[in-house]
Amino acid sequence: MSAALIGVDWGTSNLRVMRIAQGGAVLDSRSDPRGAGGLTPDRFRDVLNDVAGGWLDESLPVLVSGMAGARGRWREMAYAPCPAGVDELARAVARPDDAAFVALVPGVAAYRDGRLNDVMRGEETQVVGLDAPADAVVVAPGTHSKWIRTAAGRIVDFRTFMTGELFAAVRQATILGADMGEPGADDAAFADGVRRGLADPAITATLFSVRIEGLAGRLSAAASADYLSGLLIGAEVAAQADASHRPVILIGAEALSRRYAAALALGGFDDVAIADGAAATARGLWRIHKACS
Amino acid sequence: MSAALIGVDWGTSNLRVMRIAQGGAVLDSRSDPRGAGGLTPDRFRDVLNDVAGGWLDESLPVLVSGMAGARGRWREMAYAPCPAGVDELARAVARPDDAAFVALVPGVAAYRDGRLNDVMRGEETQVVGLDAPADAVVVAPGTHSKWIRTAAGRIVDFRTFMTGELFAAVRQATILGADMGEPGADDAAFADGVRRGLADPAITATLFSVRIEGLAGRLSAAASADYLSGLLIGAEVAAQADASHRPVILIGAEALSRRYAAALALGGFDDVAIADGAAATARGLWRIHKACS
Repeated sequence: MSAALIGVDWGTSNLRVMRIAQGGAVLDSRSDPRGAGGLTPDRFRDVLNDVAGGWLDESLPVLVSGMAGARGRWREMAYAPCPAGVDELARAVARPDDAAFVALVPGVAAYRDGRLNDVMRGEETQVVGLDAPADAVVVAPGTHSKWIRTAAGRIVDFRTFMTGELFAAVRQATILGADMGEPGADDAAFADGVRRGLADPAITATLFSVRIEGLAGRLSAAASADYLSGLLIGAEVAAQADASHRPVILIGAEALSRRYAAALALGGFDDVAIADGAAATARGLWRIHKACS
Repeated sequence: MSAALIGVDWGTSNLRVMRIAQGGAVLDSRSDPRGAGGLTPDRFRDVLNDVAGGWLDESLPVLVSGMAGARGRWREMAYAPCPAGVDELARAVARPDDAAFVALVPGVAAYRDGRLNDVMRGEETQVVGLDAPADAVVVAPGTHSKWIRTAAGRIVDFRTFMTGELFAAVRQATILGADMGEPGADDAAFADGVRRGLADPAITATLFSVRIEGLAGRLSAAASADYLSGLLIGAEVAAQADASHRPVILIGAEALSRRYAAALALGGFDDVAIADGAAATARGLWRIHKACS
């Protein structure tokens, strides 16, 4: 099957280039560690040529979402204000330089009382690639988790939680990380942490419970990373409890999405689905491309 | 004036030895960076001899509070359960080894529903050295801030917040720390952070506001450490809002106590005093020593 679009998901620390068919299906995909976070503006074209290799062809459009459009990267793209759907994103697509066949998707910004309140780059493309029910919440867990409220396929508001990055910082730079194992080993410790995080949103205080549970012999060093992960994810779910009646669609790495699904169930969310994030990105790029044409 | 007691405040990263007069006044004081966190059990006696020098005399008792009694240090001391005052602490004082004239003060533990909920080592001695009003809250800000509820001079409950350590970890190990200045430069940015932390306890989310405020041009890199400090202290104050009708006594380093006083005022606490923590430690050691005799 021949490609109709080259789609690029350029994250901070990773790059994925896809051959995309009419309709948005992924035909082939290549990954590379040259994320946008480490590239100066003049390097993007060379890296893309290198990774996409023989896929590039002047007759085939290339559409890029993610951090290539961040300040100091390929070209700083504006943020489309909420509410934003395929049409609003397509209207703001722009070329990074004089390459006639490459274009970047804008980010999206949320405002509160007229003030900038949050931003995203990349997740907007995934959201418009989903076939989400009306009034859903799309949750993109990770370093910076996003909770994205949608209505009729458009992003109406969202909030970022630095859960993954805080988890890493606590492990790396506090006394709690000293003897800590890897997460993923102990589902019961994870659930204990989630329940604690749901019940008490004061993270600076509940963090100390990692130490207390260890001291009391109720938490092993091997299980403490799961408990800590649960604490932070539980507090995140608690902060979004007002969305518990909405359908939730998780679009993260599979293991992480499954952990979030478990935390959401403990938090009273009963309509939770896990979607394929890479497929959503490709379909979103295709839909934005079509709306540009 | 002659000394009646040698008092030692042995913290994790610092040591203070004091000549204390009858009644608890400090006659002389020496500090040393050989904190308990870096010492094996066999090293404590030599370090004490070294720092106290000619002050030690077989006829003069030595009483030690703080982390010398932590697991793996001079001797692991039990935690006296709440409620704990001078008498309960004095009953649990014990000698670390066969040195007839050195004794350690125990820590204090808080329980909830019969389960260990929090621990302290060192702050208990400061609390019993204060002349606090009944039903007060003693706040010891720092790496691990403690909020200590007292009744008639006894510790009845307390909670630890890892505010200082989390502040350092966020600066050291997240994207927010990249261009961050030093705290203490911008009182207005600190107050903005406090108000945000008071209004929204979801720290993993409000942390991202450091980035958003910078992106929107509302927060300079130089002021962002103050804003971050305010966010975390504001969330700590919010979590203790039920104590706002109580008198609060702050016993931290002076600059930090003043920042907490400003945050407490914004949080609706209207009876806040700053006490001299070193004097409180000396008086607490004296009172515990007297109760042992």
